[in-house]
Amino acid sequence: MTPDSSAMPDPVFTLHEGGKLEIRSTVALTGPESLAQAYTPGVGRVSAAVAEDRDLVWDYTAKGSTVAIVSDGSAVLGLGDVGPEAALPVMEGKAVLLKEFGGVNAVPLVMHRRDIDSFIDAVASLAPGYGAILLEDIAAPDCFEIERRLRDALDIPVFHDDQHGTAAVVLAGMFSVERLTGRPLADTRVVMLGSGAAGSACAHLLLEAGAQDVVCVDREGIVHTGRKGLSGPKADLAATTNRAGLTGGLDVALTGSHAVIGVSGPGLLPPDLLALMSDDAAVFALANPIPEVLPSEVPGNVRIVATGRSDFPNQINNVLAFPGICRGLLDVRASAVTDDVIIETARAISSLVGEADLAEGAIIPSAFDPRVVPAVSKAVRRVATASGVARVKGKA
Amino acid sequence: MTPDSSAMPDPVFTLHEGGKLEIRSTVALTGPESLAQAYTPGVGRVSAAVAEDRDLVWDYTAKGSTVAIVSDGSAVLGLGDVGPEAALPVMEGKAVLLKEFGGVNAVPLVMHRRDIDSFIDAVASLAPGYGAILLEDIAAPDCFEIERRLRDALDIPVFHDDQHGTAAVVLAGMFSVERLTGRPLADTRVVMLGSGAAGSACAHLLLEAGAQDVVCVDREGIVHTGRKGLSGPKADLAATTNRAGLTGGLDVALTGSHAVIGVSGPGLLPPDLLALMSDDAAVFALANPIPEVLPSEVPGNVRIVATGRSDFPNQINNVLAFPGICRGLLDVRASAVTDDVIIETARAISSLVGEADLAEGAIIPSAFDPRVVPAVSKAVRRVATASGVARVKGKA
Repeated sequence: MTPDSSAMPDPVFTLHEGGKLEIRSTVALTGPESLAQAYTPGVGRVSAAVAEDRDLVWDYTAKGSTVAIVSDGSAVLGLGDVGPEAALPVMEGKAVLLKEFGGVNAVPLVMHRRDIDSFIDAVASLAPGYGAILLEDIAAPDCFEIERRLRDALDIPVFHDDQHGTAAVVLAGMFSVERLTGRPLADTRVVMLGSGAAGSACAHLLLEAGAQDVVCVDREGIVHTGRKGLSGPKADLAATTNRAGLTGGLDVALTGSHAVIGVSGPGLLPPDLLALMSDDAAVFALANPIPEVLPSEVPGNVRIVATGRSDFPNQINNVLAFPGICRGLLDVRASAVTDDVIIETARAISSLVGEADLAEGAIIPSAFDPRVVPAVSKAVRRVATASGVARVKGKA
Repeated sequence: MTPDSSAMPDPVFTLHEGGKLEIRSTVALTGPESLAQAYTPGVGRVSAAVAEDRDLVWDYTAKGSTVAIVSDGSAVLGLGDVGPEAALPVMEGKAVLLKEFGGVNAVPLVMHRRDIDSFIDAVASLAPGYGAILLEDIAAPDCFEIERRLRDALDIPVFHDDQHGTAAVVLAGMFSVERLTGRPLADTRVVMLGSGAAGSACAHLLLEAGAQDVVCVDREGIVHTGRKGLSGPKADLAATTNRAGLTGGLDVALTGSHAVIGVSGPGLLPPDLLALMSDDAAVFALANPIPEVLPSEVPGNVRIVATGRSDFPNQINNVLAFPGICRGLLDVRASAVTDDVIIETARAISSLVGEADLAEGAIIPSAFDPRVVPAVSKAVRRVATASGVARVKGKA
């Protein structure tokens, strides 16, 4: 995978040379006077003021415009547990997207992790400098505990993009499916294929948003309360999903279902199984870069296909959600991110596809649609304010 | 200390509004193609390459141009233990200086500290993303243990500016004093007033650079091996300094001495005691913002006075050292920072004052002298290479 120096330069590696981020000063140092203001002795007065009233850190530092992107590199893209160094290019990429799309300053913090306690302690200890924490590419099931304990410990939002960002864009797509098919989410049987971080979060959010019938399937088949060896997050999943008590494999789950959301791996939704679904079924095949099924392969009963790829219609991509979510959370100096924030993010994204444009191949806006971040951040500010997690009102 | 909103706007607080740093992308996101290179799927190939050969993190991320500025806020300027929030404006200021003077990307990491072990673990766990760690405003004596243990644990330089940066610029001043008075450092009796982080480091470096006779004085008087209650770093100091075995107070230490370096507090070098020093004595009164003695108050036997202030001649300021040191260490991807690096930094700074310019009121260049960073970083690259801590050759 390393570039071959004897071959033509690889444009991807060339682009990444020296990294993708720089830190810039927003003040000019023109001489001793500006030095005495931006640094000692002037800065001493600012520090003294913050020491007296800690909340002034939001006013006189970059905390209010800056998020930390935290990863231990334990579940990087499809590469697995590659460690912090190999995670860094991805985290820098995320920071690029946050800045370019959302105007958010994002600092990658890639960390060696020895045990879960010391990792949580380290992240919590760093929180004073940031307006929000984004957890990234941390393997399940630890990611659930890390997120939960950090949320309990901190007074800033803790957002795990693999969970909440994915759930937001999946729900956005499902809102559009609801509008297109006319079948309410409450009457839609949804199969979740994959029950790691993304799958669990999608199932949870679909239920919060009104779905009644979600069935999760993992490598061992349908997740149900009678299955042996379930514990922790997966036991929670069994308890809250699968109201019909289905048991068996993917074929059982898919039979008669209206939608399937794959966050699993290449080829895991074979066409013959998709044929078991209802007429006008929706298939979100989100494994990257090779989806669970190619759009060209789906059987005739499948009406809507979405993937994570930009070279097919209906790209369900987290970049639709996290820049606007972070922008909105920072705008109101939010103390937390709630399910309502994620659900309204999804609604805002789906709403950008007008009735006239909504179609089988057009359920979701483009990541480069300039209306996305303003619409999402506005929804986030509104919901955060309504739900009492906003510290300030934020701009309109 | 907080700004009074009914009064005129305070320019220092206005300058600090919203903080002093931003994070910028160095790649342009113009459409799906650049997104696919800077982020998924393209970045996956870069991550896979780094996972295979971890050293590629230096080539394909910002690690090689980025340092972390780490503080727990336990000894911020003269304010004391004000915590991470109040430390952040200072750390942002330091980052501004690193960028503006040295072209170095610096990320402030302000951290709550519960105990020394978890703090060290947290900083060590974050090291993969940075080319060097700068410790800042961490109280003595913990700063010594933190620095030592991090140096042992990490394969990047760990630099404590309060120690090594101060020692570098003090030694630079002493090299100029040596040139101006003709008295070799080896024959100079130096009194160090203050034996915290800065004082200890100055004493250590002066000895490494050739001084033979350094006497440290703290609140309880001269540091000597017979003094009760000495332990840890201060016992080490007693063992390596004060070759004449002096005991007693500052008056004893100063009598007949050639130089005194104050890193203590306002007014602690009264003129009547300075009169006990040799003819052509040098006084570095570095307490900020109010020095140990004002230049206008020194007795006639004092030939050279330096302070930390820009409004007097001979400003001994760390900003002369740390931007060039960091620049040079990053240039060669150094694995450590050695005493030799600090000593040669000092020599490079002093050398910028040519023989024709060297005078009682001109022993040190201005922080805004554009020759400083190139000269320091060149010396650092040379010494790091010679001493085997350079990973690459770096530019000339």
